[in-house]
Order: sequence, then C-alpha cells, then structure tokens
Amino acid sequence: MLKVKVYVTLRESVLDPQGTAVKKSLQMMGHHSVEDVRIGKYMELTFADDAANLDTLVKEMCDKLLANPVIEDYRYEIEEVVVQ
Amino acid sequence: MLKVKVYVTLRESVLDPQGTAVKKSLQMMGHHSVEDVRIGKYMELTFADDAANLDTLVKEMCDKLLANPVIEDYRYEIEEVVVQ
Repeated sequence: MLKVKVYVTLRESVLDPQGTAVKKSLQMMGHHSVEDVRIGKYMELTFADDAANLDTLVKEMCDKLLANPVIEDYRYEIEEVVVQ
Repeated sequence: MLKVKVYVTLRESVLDPQGTAVKKSLQMMGHHSVEDVRIGKYMELTFADDAANLDTLVKEMCDKLLANPVIEDYRYEIEEVVVQ
C-alpha cells in the first residue's frame, strides 16, 4: 500500500485570519510565548500498490483539486506502507 | 526562533465525509488508484526563543484548543529555526 502525505499551506504573503484567531485564543489562555500561528490542511492519500508515476499523479491532484494555486503552496511525502 | 508543526487528524474510527468527498472527486477526475483520503489540520506555531517546557506547553494547547480529544488525535514536531 502506498501512502502520500500532503501539506497545503497558505502562502506567506496571504493573511491567515484563522491562524490569527487561534493565536489570540492561545494568548488569552496565558500562552504569551506564541508569536504566530499558521493553519493549513493535512491530507493522507492511500493508493493501490500498482499506482504508477505517483509524483506526476499527486502533482496533478494538488494543482487541480487539493490546493488553490493562487493562495496556497503544497508539499508531499510518499511512503510505502507494509500491511501485516 | 522555535517552530512547532502540529498535525491533527480524525481518529481511525471516525467517519471522514470531507475525505470521502475528495476521494470521489479525484476518482471522477480519473484517478482510480486512490483508495482512501483522510483530511486533517496542519498548524505551524512560532514561539519566542525563551519559551520553556515546550513539550508541556504544546500538549496543553493541543488538549485544550487545537484538537478535539473526543474525535481527533494529534502529533507534533519541534524545530529550531535559525533566523539569518
């Protein structure tokens, strides 16, 4: 089984209101050492063993569906999972 | 500067309608090798250099705010970022 971990994050130049809200909540909880919070998406995709050209496949999935190329960046890691 | 990467995912036993919807969309795009999609949150927290007991801090933040302990699991990685 093949597993791909995809991380989608807002570009540095893009405001992150959700992250700002979480930062303020943490600081109100007394965590004043928190300087910044950025929130993104984390996806785990499972592929059939015979999936070929995974790099090309995942790039196309990210470009077309999983990430918004205008405001988001993405990176991914491919893992082989041995099923007992 | 200290950076903590937090990954929040739904527990295996919890249904993931968002993941299911993305899986179906990918398969409609022709990606039939996709067997499963699980979607979670990815957060990057930046701390002041003098932040102490980071493990304890981050665990408390996750338990109280960043993750829902009833339906979600979390893991995190602590990184030292050298600012040029």
